[in-house]
Amino acid sequence: MHSFRNDYSEECHPLVSEALARCASEQNPGYGEDAHCERARELLREAMTGSLERSGADEGQLERARRAPIAFVPGGTMANLLVISSALRPYECVIAALDGHINVHETGAIEATGHKVITTADADGVLTAEGAEAVLAEHCYGQNHHMVIPRMLYLSFSTEMGMVHSSAQLAALRAFADEHGLLIYIDGARLAAGLASPATDVTLADILGTADAFTFGATKNGALFGEAVVFMNPIPFGNFKAAQKQRGALMAKGFLYGIQFEALFSSSGCEAGIPEAEGAEPLYFSLGRHANAMAVALKEALRRDGFDHLAADGQTNQVFVQVDEPTARLLEERFCCEPFGVTDEGERIMRFVCSWATQPEHIQELNSALKALR
Amino acid sequence: MHSFRNDYSEECHPLVSEALARCASEQNPGYGEDAHCERARELLREAMTGSLERSGADEGQLERARRAPIAFVPGGTMANLLVISSALRPYECVIAALDGHINVHETGAIEATGHKVITTADADGVLTAEGAEAVLAEHCYGQNHHMVIPRMLYLSFSTEMGMVHSSAQLAALRAFADEHGLLIYIDGARLAAGLASPATDVTLADILGTADAFTFGATKNGALFGEAVVFMNPIPFGNFKAAQKQRGALMAKGFLYGIQFEALFSSSGCEAGIPEAEGAEPLYFSLGRHANAMAVALKEALRRDGFDHLAADGQTNQVFVQVDEPTARLLEERFCCEPFGVTDEGERIMRFVCSWATQPEHIQELNSALKALR
Amino acid sequence: MHSFRNDYSEECHPLVSEALARCASEQNPGYGEDAHCERARELLREAMTGSLERSGADEGQLERARRAPIAFVPGGTMANLLVISSALRPYECVIAALDGHINVHETGAIEATGHKVITTADADGVLTAEGAEAVLAEHCYGQNHHMVIPRMLYLSFSTEMGMVHSSAQLAALRAFADEHGLLIYIDGARLAAGLASPATDVTLADILGTADAFTFGATKNGALFGEAVVFMNPIPFGNFKAAQKQRGALMAKGFLYGIQFEALFSSSGCEAGIPEAEGAEPLYFSLGRHANAMAVALKEALRRDGFDHLAADGQTNQVFVQVDEPTARLLEERFCCEPFGVTDEGERIMRFVCSWATQPEHIQELNSALKALR
Amino acid sequence: MHSFRNDYSEECHPLVSEALARCASEQNPGYGEDAHCERARELLREAMTGSLERSGADEGQLERARRAPIAFVPGGTMANLLVISSALRPYECVIAALDGHINVHETGAIEATGHKVITTADADGVLTAEGAEAVLAEHCYGQNHHMVIPRMLYLSFSTEMGMVHSSAQLAALRAFADEHGLLIYIDGARLAAGLASPATDVTLADILGTADAFTFGATKNGALFGEAVVFMNPIPFGNFKAAQKQRGALMAKGFLYGIQFEALFSSSGCEAGIPEAEGAEPLYFSLGRHANAMAVALKEALRRDGFDHLAADGQTNQVFVQVDEPTARLLEERFCCEPFGVTDEGERIMRFVCSWATQPEHIQELNSALKALR
Repeated sequence: MHSFRNDYSEECHPLVSEALARCASEQNPGYGEDAHCERARELLREAMTGSLERSGADEGQLERARRAPIAFVPGGTMANLLVISSALRPYECVIAALDGHINVHETGAIEATGHKVITTADADGVLTAEGAEAVLAEHCYGQNHHMVIPRMLYLSFSTEMGMVHSSAQLAALRAFADEHGLLIYIDGARLAAGLASPATDVTLADILGTADAFTFGATKNGALFGEAVVFMNPIPFGNFKAAQKQRGALMAKGFLYGIQFEALFSSSGCEAGIPEAEGAEPLYFSLGRHANAMAVALKEALRRDGFDHLAADGQTNQVFVQVDEPTARLLEERFCCEPFGVTDEGERIMRFVCSWATQPEHIQELNSALKALR
Repeated sequence: MHSFRNDYSEECHPLVSEALARCASEQNPGYGEDAHCERARELLREAMTGSLERSGADEGQLERARRAPIAFVPGGTMANLLVISSALRPYECVIAALDGHINVHETGAIEATGHKVITTADADGVLTAEGAEAVLAEHCYGQNHHMVIPRMLYLSFSTEMGMVHSSAQLAALRAFADEHGLLIYIDGARLAAGLASPATDVTLADILGTADAFTFGATKNGALFGEAVVFMNPIPFGNFKAAQKQRGALMAKGFLYGIQFEALFSSSGCEAGIPEAEGAEPLYFSLGRHANAMAVALKEALRRDGFDHLAADGQTNQVFVQVDEPTARLLEERFCCEPFGVTDEGERIMRFVCSWATQPEHIQELNSALKALR
Repeated sequence: MHSFRNDYSEECHPLVSEALARCASEQNPGYGEDAHCERARELLREAMTGSLERSGADEGQLERARRAPIAFVPGGTMANLLVISSALRPYECVIAALDGHINVHETGAIEATGHKVITTADADGVLTAEGAEAVLAEHCYGQNHHMVIPRMLYLSFSTEMGMVHSSAQLAALRAFADEHGLLIYIDGARLAAGLASPATDVTLADILGTADAFTFGATKNGALFGEAVVFMNPIPFGNFKAAQKQRGALMAKGFLYGIQFEALFSSSGCEAGIPEAEGAEPLYFSLGRHANAMAVALKEALRRDGFDHLAADGQTNQVFVQVDEPTARLLEERFCCEPFGVTDEGERIMRFVCSWATQPEHIQELNSALKALR
Repeated sequence: MHSFRNDYSEECHPLVSEALARCASEQNPGYGEDAHCERARELLREAMTGSLERSGADEGQLERARRAPIAFVPGGTMANLLVISSALRPYECVIAALDGHINVHETGAIEATGHKVITTADADGVLTAEGAEAVLAEHCYGQNHHMVIPRMLYLSFSTEMGMVHSSAQLAALRAFADEHGLLIYIDGARLAAGLASPATDVTLADILGTADAFTFGATKNGALFGEAVVFMNPIPFGNFKAAQKQRGALMAKGFLYGIQFEALFSSSGCEAGIPEAEGAEPLYFSLGRHANAMAVALKEALRRDGFDHLAADGQTNQVFVQVDEPTARLLEERFCCEPFGVTDEGERIMRFVCSWATQPEHIQELNSALKALR
């Protein structure tokens, strides 16, 4: 039976492993200073400028994208702790939604670098300007030296609960940040699924226009591992490469990132045979689109079979159902879906996740099994 | 006009300054290794064993108190960050009430040592076993390595909102801590006021029976500065003196602590002419009693004058009234009382604090001025 | 022209990539809790107990090895900072040789976790008991709380300069550590080369008998990435998995470690066709043997061609020659060998590194090119 | 018998305790926001501008001094860790002489804030531009992201060995720092003794012209406790008050600093009856002058009595003699002088320290006792 536990159960997309195989006999310089990484950075910047051009961005914005430094790190927690600790002075803090990944599921990684995470009351991990404003007000707009001084907004796109911001929400966050001298960091561990969501009008250009730094997450979208950290506003983040080395995040064989991101951004999803691919978009984006489509099919299957109580409705690649305790146990055993807490009413939340690797037959198989259960 | 802003507006009790004057021509070894500190430690331990004896404690408890290491540090934030960071492994965290001082008003001091503070929903800073249980459950009882691992309970006695635990609440916390392998640290910045409160049955013996470490706060109770950190269970806290030096908390002229604590614990409050003093209790405890008595008088004066909407009713030395915005401004200007946030209904909370230095005539003066205001 | 820049210029040994290819369609649980990691841990423990048995170890030692927890981390700096920060209290420090990797080439990674590295005068990175004793004495054997308190010895086997300890030196370090309550951590980034060196009598059993924790480095010995951290004495290191998550070192696709270490420890070097393989030893060890053999051939080629001034003579896989400035530049351009500092006499040190990927024809090619240069 | 153990054995100068007594009945705002601190800051700035005017400084320099923010902290280690950690990014480090206080005698306080201390080969704690240049070169002038990146020079004036820089040495350090984008921090724990030393031409104006930040140390020069941190170049140090609070260094009764520094800088040494006072200089400077004069007398007494082997000859308030082991023990017992290590030849170094509190009769007493010993 296919496991819907998460979006990092398989190694990597076949085009990524083929690329790695092709380069197997190469010798490359270490630490990300190789031609593959350089080419991968160029491909990422091309995807960025392409989106900006389609959105009618001006030359200044294009130039920022063309010059944006890009670093590769092994995983999401590392990206988060590095980006945040690089830009904050010791007494500064980061604002996140209560469910924000950095607040709950990183074993205090941000605090281990010396910084407090303060949280808004925003639901489902969707940080809003209103939520941030309330927290900033509680902290006296940074004027009370007995309290931490807010300096950065952290948000995930898509969020830990599979939700997506709208472009208007992102614009409001940017305006809020500018007004109060805050930086914005967007955790893109599931960026591809977010951008492909029919529930939002956000494009990559909106991400670029909002974030001082953001990530193209690939661990959950086709690569063995790796997140590309893009700095739209590099100055506040200092010498990021030194920071990487210091935190154990400067991979000796950095070229592995380059080869993988090249594969994800040089092939188009169409050529790669992804049915959901649009236009000539790079494989990276098509894989997110595919994962979302599988999640739609999964949701329909669950609904058809009576699991129609959804805990959040994010229209990305994650589906959360509320069930009673015995059903929760049964679903976990049979489909490896993941327990994701308990509602205030005592119902269990179970998470099903689709990915680039999920196929229609896996959904059918699930459907049949669910039928048999009922 | 007397200021009710806080309990650290004056230098120190006259008996403390007299003691300092008496020792002015002495030479003493540095770093707390002098005879005054040694004598002060003995006096503190006598107060501890005295309370234990009165409570019918067994020999084991008495012996723990007789052997308890005692360190002196300059202030409350320093005591908190040192005690907490000394006992926690990097990924461990401390549980506090939402209003706990370490969570809000220490500019992220605990996080700066690498540790997350996680908070309960308990009101008025009164950490309870139920509140801690809920948070521990959310953190999977320390079994989920994607979350911080709770290791310590932090509580203030009395709390930031002037409240006091009961002995039953402390016993419940100790039982809870024992069940889950947690340490308990009691921040005694306002210990004397707490112990003297008519609203609680807690004695010093209860503090000793509850805490692995706690402080006798003196900055807010008669000294120029200084908190005595007592370790009832010293092993988990390691080499505290090395920790003190490392964090800049090993005062060169450590004998200043000794001289001050000697003064506070060798004179009885009775001899010192404190009207509220009970029996032969050391001055330190009588000063808390006096501060509380002044707060009762203050509360009555406020009530008589129509300021009868109290925000918390802790029966220690702090009084919190809820007033509208113009009144808040007026009170702040005239009586230097301190703004302490805003209620959910939009009313301002103003804090009046009494101390060892507050005298009946200050309350009368306040009373007259309030009458004139109305 | 083949590059001798380092031992991490190529992806991985063909048997590793074949293993990854074989598992490409699998689904595995995340974070190292999969069957591959479990099997890899068993294989590592078998190699360990095998060596202990051959050395005549007693049942207690065997049992320690059978029960040793093993964690996988992405690289060497991460292994170092995690192991060290997991075992030290805030004011404790680690002793290393002046050239120790943690002291010079990790951008202050240990200090970033709050701990000082103090250094001995030992040459070539070879920490000795005598060197450590002198430093411990300077630090008053941990009795002066104005100084950091030594708690751990750090050594690399083989060292950054390609040197190896003898078993007598390791035994002396262990005796010294036991006498003074110190832990020993052996950085095995180049463990395979060290164990295969004809210059030492050290076996894996000696490593196990010396270290409280050590690593099987694979990044430089056949894997894409990955170091296995083995805890012979796990208690002082706490909940290492929580520490990994907190520092960004808990890889989502942890099964990638498992698959790679399985490949390196389940095949024998002989079967894999490594000419230098001895007996039925796992591929991992044979690859170190091969790298060393290539270095011997390289050294001979260099000597034949007049580059006979060696800066260190470690008989592992690294070769250091001293040359004048123009020759240094020429060598760097032509053979991608790495500048490694300057001697006191002003000569440049150039490092040539061989690896599992170096072949006899690469040495011949070098030889011809060097001849042409002269 | 008078103790020559250190310069912090007595409480404080009589004029300081008188000032404290005069203010005993005052109420003052907390955290250094009171009128005494404000007046003390003005007095310090007047001393600064006075020295600049005498040195012929231009208006720009005067203006910098007039606007220099000044913070008060309890002790020297705290000043050092706060100033350094406030200005450095995580991967940046500070350069100090091998004997620098931060490198040896602060229990890793700087490392506990995450930063490495790298050391020069300079003797007696006297950091030089040449020494710093060599270390900077070893660290590739900050261009190698595998190594920490130097950002600050730390020096003490006077040094831990009682030595003083010349104005030419300070100017060379400033030029070196400007060339390489480094900050300079001068630890003035013994500033007054340094400025009063006949062995140097350095004036306060030179300190102001050299340092981005420095301290007026008072713990060792007449106060109960307290160092004033002056920021000649405040921007790189951020919100220092928030940093103070976070590290436990924002004293509740901050007005105690104000009262003490007022006393040290509003009285002239002449009026206070210090025989060595020059002109109308504030008491603070005269106290340093007096301590030095006592040290000269002490040195003469030691020489007369055959203790003529000095370990360093700094002409400030500290005297270091080299003696054999039995003599060392005898001196320690009788005069409370402090063991200060061992020379390479195995002789013991004993430190005698004079202070504002040392009187000619103490020296005579020592003289007589030494005579009796011989």
